[in-house]
Amino acid sequence: MDDHTIALEPLTAAAFAPFGDVLAARGAADMVINGGLCDRFHDLADVQVLGEGARAGISLFRSRARTLPYRLDLMERHPLGSQAFMPLGPAPFLVIVAPDAGGRPGRPRAFRTAPGQGVNYHAGVWHGVLTPLVDGATFLVVDRIGPGENLEEVVFETPYVIVG
Amino acid sequence: MDDHTIALEPLTAAAFAPFGDVLAARGAADMVINGGLCDRFHDLADVQVLGEGARAGISLFRSRARTLPYRLDLMERHPLGSQAFMPLGPAPFLVIVAPDAGGRPGRPRAFRTAPGQGVNYHAGVWHGVLTPLVDGATFLVVDRIGPGENLEEVVFETPYVIVG
Repeated sequence: MDDHTIALEPLTAAAFAPFGDVLAARGAADMVINGGLCDRFHDLADVQVLGEGARAGISLFRSRARTLPYRLDLMERHPLGSQAFMPLGPAPFLVIVAPDAGGRPGRPRAFRTAPGQGVNYHAGVWHGVLTPLVDGATFLVVDRIGPGENLEEVVFETPYVIVG
Repeated sequence: MDDHTIALEPLTAAAFAPFGDVLAARGAADMVINGGLCDRFHDLADVQVLGEGARAGISLFRSRARTLPYRLDLMERHPLGSQAFMPLGPAPFLVIVAPDAGGRPGRPRAFRTAPGQGVNYHAGVWHGVLTPLVDGATFLVVDRIGPGENLEEVVFETPYVIVG
């Protein structure tokens, strides 16, 4: 592979830890509530809301599908808040992130989710736009609502290509 | 029906407005983002987080199913924060709420969701525990994480019966 080709990795909490949190109801529940009838997987994400007059909000995103190989020509980040994406169905999606390299994205990494996994990007983490692999996929999004400039975008002169 | 029998209603934003918000990707999107490929249904819920040292958190709940007729013998409320429930699949669930009547739940109302609908109970709103109609249903929950007493429960001497 050339140096602008990125191979997909499976999404795991350990691999994703530098970028944020993986949301999943896996393993033993943190609490069992409602008279033993409900498992609670508790407080899975660091929901970050920075700046005066800001708060966490809930939105729904419904996106067109992407296909592999995927041409990655833009990444973005939100300096003032985290952003969580949880799919409302079992279809996997692509999670593309990059370490910061002097105020621009470094070499990206790309993850394919397993059914039931979502992610929470921490504040300031470079990521791709929402990239589901099925059309019309809907996601619950928890992110910062408030004043201030909370979006930085970088367009790549030479796009990366994500391969499956 | 006797006065302890409650008939299910369809969940609509108007009917639910006294109790909280309906979460759904319906109608025209509030914004179209990501180069026209993604609909954003923006800021659908009033996420309420009251008290010192508290914040919004994301959890996942996985619950056993209930069946109709459903015997409602307990309601609860969270005075310090809202609590949102969004199903991660299409199966409907029961949403049971009640107006306050002098510090106790008044006569409950019960709603059956349509596929793709979730709810956000506002702070202090009496509601039933999570009652999916299919086993193992998983929900994303956004609620208050923090110190303080944020749970009141009332057990009914004479249970209500929710009928379909």
